Amino acid sequence: MSFYFELIGTIYTPFLSEENMPIQPAAATKVEGKIIIREDLVPALSDLDGFSHIILIYYFHKSKGFDHQVVPFLDTVSHGLFATRAPRRPNAIGLSVVRLVRIEGNVLFVENVDMLNETPLLDIKPYVSAFDNIHAEKCGWLDKKSEELKSAKSDKRFGGSV
Amino acid sequence: MSFYFELIGTIYTPFLSEENMPIQPAAATKVEGKIIIREDLVPALSDLDGFSHIILIYYFHKSKGFDHQVVPFLDTVSHGLFATRAPRRPNAIGLSVVRLVRIEGNVLFVENVDMLNETPLLDIKPYVSAFDNIHAEKCGWLDKKSEELKSAKSDKRFGGSV
Repeated sequence: MSFYFELIGTIYTPFLSEENMPIQPAAATKVEGKIIIREDLVPALSDLDGFSHIILIYYFHKSKGFDHQVVPFLDTVSHGLFATRAPRRPNAIGLSVVRLVRIEGNVLFVENVDMLNETPLLDIKPYVSAFDNIHAEKCGWLDKKSEELKSAKSDKRFGGSV
Repeated sequence: MSFYFELIGTIYTPFLSEENMPIQPAAATKVEGKIIIREDLVPALSDLDGFSHIILIYYFHKSKGFDHQVVPFLDTVSHGLFATRAPRRPNAIGLSVVRLVRIEGNVLFVENVDMLNETPLLDIKPYVSAFDNIHAEKCGWLDKKSEELKSAKSDKRFGGSV
């Protein structure tokens, strides 16, 4: 069974290669990006500017293949792929929450971008605190890593962003 | 430009039709579901059980087409599609955060499910508070709706879940 998706826009960021990128929006505070949305979809953007944050679902376009076990940027031991946010996955789908600064026509000005330049965008959803702001009691191997995260940058290990 | 994704598993829930479903996990507290993961991907699940919550990215398999403007379940006026979480979207990609109760082999037992039975799963990511728990100052038209959400159920308007 396979699923077909189409491009809805393109994300432009300062990150031209996967070296020295922030590995999550939390480590990319204030990094500015721009999203160009397909012209025919502009009417679907109305009211989005009422939200301070939006969820971007995108394609890790530089990511090829995957391994079941990976050593993530933030650790020195391996973990099951699905217990990580690594870009090399069975489906190379990325997820980031960014700050929406303003919208001008088909251009979204955003902050806290952590993806490669020219990343293909698949969907935008409003970040809704009532749905998305969860009190998670356990965050596995990442529980002890949140301080390191703020300064962590990626390397070439994953052949892609995040 | 188009993108192909493959099935990584199937989500089983008590919701056999889109009527009277909870429209988000926040309205589906304790509703139990089960996810059967492809056998070949089981090694990629290791360490996932350290996380209390996981992000499911899935395909709205009953959703057909989309409109640029929609009247969401929680409102009586229309909004731009991308300012809603409606399932009928240019790419019918769904996103829900559910509680992970336990893993047995290739079966994930979860709570707070809000999707239709037999929903095709595309990706699992760990919910990481440091990345995903955002203080969003503005949640647009949904800012005044969080109380209603807790009891809101869907209807057939969207031809799909959420």
